[in-house]
Amino acid sequence: MINQTMLDLGRAPSPIRQLFNYGFERKKVVGEENVFDFSIGNPSIPAPEAIRERMRELIEQDPAALHGYSPASGLPATRAAVARNLRERFGIEADPRHIYMTTGAMAGVKSVICAVARPGEEVIVNAPYFPEYRMLIETAGCICVEVPTRADDFQLDIEALAQAVNPNTALVIVNSPNNPVGTVYTQDCIERLSDLLESREREYGHPIYLLSDEPYRELCYGDPVPFTANFYRDTIVCYSWAKSLSLPGERIGYVFTSSRMERADDVADAVAGAHRSLGYVCAPVMFQKVIETCVDLPANVEAYRSNRDLLTAGLDELGYRYVSPDGAFYLWVKALEEDAQAFSDRAKEHDLLLVASDSFGCSGWVRVSYCVSETSIRNSMKAWRALKESYGA
Amino acid sequence: MINQTMLDLGRAPSPIRQLFNYGFERKKVVGEENVFDFSIGNPSIPAPEAIRERMRELIEQDPAALHGYSPASGLPATRAAVARNLRERFGIEADPRHIYMTTGAMAGVKSVICAVARPGEEVIVNAPYFPEYRMLIETAGCICVEVPTRADDFQLDIEALAQAVNPNTALVIVNSPNNPVGTVYTQDCIERLSDLLESREREYGHPIYLLSDEPYRELCYGDPVPFTANFYRDTIVCYSWAKSLSLPGERIGYVFTSSRMERADDVADAVAGAHRSLGYVCAPVMFQKVIETCVDLPANVEAYRSNRDLLTAGLDELGYRYVSPDGAFYLWVKALEEDAQAFSDRAKEHDLLLVASDSFGCSGWVRVSYCVSETSIRNSMKAWRALKESYGA
Repeated sequence: MINQTMLDLGRAPSPIRQLFNYGFERKKVVGEENVFDFSIGNPSIPAPEAIRERMRELIEQDPAALHGYSPASGLPATRAAVARNLRERFGIEADPRHIYMTTGAMAGVKSVICAVARPGEEVIVNAPYFPEYRMLIETAGCICVEVPTRADDFQLDIEALAQAVNPNTALVIVNSPNNPVGTVYTQDCIERLSDLLESREREYGHPIYLLSDEPYRELCYGDPVPFTANFYRDTIVCYSWAKSLSLPGERIGYVFTSSRMERADDVADAVAGAHRSLGYVCAPVMFQKVIETCVDLPANVEAYRSNRDLLTAGLDELGYRYVSPDGAFYLWVKALEEDAQAFSDRAKEHDLLLVASDSFGCSGWVRVSYCVSETSIRNSMKAWRALKESYGA
Repeated sequence: MINQTMLDLGRAPSPIRQLFNYGFERKKVVGEENVFDFSIGNPSIPAPEAIRERMRELIEQDPAALHGYSPASGLPATRAAVARNLRERFGIEADPRHIYMTTGAMAGVKSVICAVARPGEEVIVNAPYFPEYRMLIETAGCICVEVPTRADDFQLDIEALAQAVNPNTALVIVNSPNNPVGTVYTQDCIERLSDLLESREREYGHPIYLLSDEPYRELCYGDPVPFTANFYRDTIVCYSWAKSLSLPGERIGYVFTSSRMERADDVADAVAGAHRSLGYVCAPVMFQKVIETCVDLPANVEAYRSNRDLLTAGLDELGYRYVSPDGAFYLWVKALEEDAQAFSDRAKEHDLLLVASDSFGCSGWVRVSYCVSETSIRNSMKAWRALKESYGA
């Protein structure tokens, strides 16, 4: 009585993971330095030294206390530290009771979907979008509604959203800085989205929640990213230190249910209930203790800026077209043929691993994760050149 | 559009967690040493020193490699180490491909339910049972069927199981050493269960999976626990190092899909797909690396044996009745009145935190987690005495 949906999901990992797994094996054959793996958002910048220092200190403590269960919602000291950080940085009201420590951002996103969208209700994503959103939405029994962003600048298309939002809309997901494009939604854009959703809430007489998925919040190259919860009351923030502190494998993040929302306690409780129903017991506890003291550490944006500049300079020289990224560590590059998958497949022949845009809900592009070593970016240029030449260009 | 099921689950944490949370707050009021918290299975024995040594070594390694994502199923070296450990200890065929590293045992249990039981199908639990099973089963859309164990010795009641198993049965869950009773199911018992399920598989023409939840496998005071997968082909083992290596907060365990089963690859893929659908990305990666080298460490059974003996000697003196435990770190004590919850409430007035048996699917008992300090057991005796006396006994 195998569940066919689960079997299908297990057999066909996400295209990103598929390419990552291919790269993992391929490196064993041709050598690590000969595979230009731009597939996954696995930070190349090491975690800050302060993380190591904190761990040195923690592991000398009493192991029974160190490794014991925390309350399901997280250690009180860690939740308080996160709430304080949010208050200080964004001037927002943030009650520790509305902070739920999660096993990474994906756990948070799934739990929020289950908490505030019921089976049969609609969840809107803005394309291009992180492909796992669709999977998480559909396996919760909800309907994934794709709304394309604007073709010229990949900002939210408020008119298209106005068409899509309806009384059956439970949740809208935004992700800024955006994976896969690297766009940061402007304050004007967030304000217009907020106006739209507020007016529809009044019209329909029920809340429409906004899930702001912000793992790249600190990785931006210009002005700070507008903090969505400051603009829209019914915002739920999903965060992870995977990217900002380079801890992706440790699975540590949080959900912040805006304390300004009318039923904040209920939504926070539903988020807790959803975690429980999904088999989460508590977020990994040693890293909760790491975060307690390291929550204010800055991200190393400069390293990614330097990668970005190196990559774009190289691609400029070869005549590739791309969207200039405001944040995150992804470059959205125009494929050299209509069929992005065919382009990605041809790149693979040059050991250049680029994720085709199709699974992001958009055709004709590839996503290039530039959270790799400078050397890898430099050495990849011969592969990019060969790829271009193979198209006779 | 808050999901009411999730809200209810979040508002009413499991009775165990509720009592644990109460204890957490109560200790702040009357002092840690004055609350005799027998509520939760949070090991009092520290993790072995070898774990600390491994962590000391790991944290000096390159942080980008240390904290990076692993493949969703786990690091190849860790999966290989777990498979080798199972082969060596139990003489069972174990392919690393059938080991999936999990974020604790609960994540594994939930994923297995989702992988091999479809909504509307039945999952059998043997009462008394860990209450979160029912919640995990029902939130997967399945039906939880309780079968009481034998009243005299709490072994599986094979006749009752024979009545309960039907063509709509997808999965049977066993948990030995048992939480909450401490019983170890005998080899005879497991063999008879295996015979029953095999004959029903033939009769119905489809597999009936057996989920063997084994976090207490190494914590047994007599002969080793029979390894269920050696007796029944369609077994899926859920394991965690929470108890055996005292790492409950770190969320590290595995699912082993018996390599002997006919569709082992499919079931393992469905387990992977289920994890993905639930928002799991990979098990916490530093503890995967800890397990890679620490998988063969023995559990400190003697410490729990000494706790058990201390507690039972004290209760013997006071004239309490209980089931003598073969394993785990729970004592199943007869309540002094019919209503176990009322008994638990009265114990609470003496700062003695005991979980009422009702939520385990059984009335008239309490569960006493004796994974606490010896001092706490000793000091609790005055509270046990006062509780007894309050019943005029």
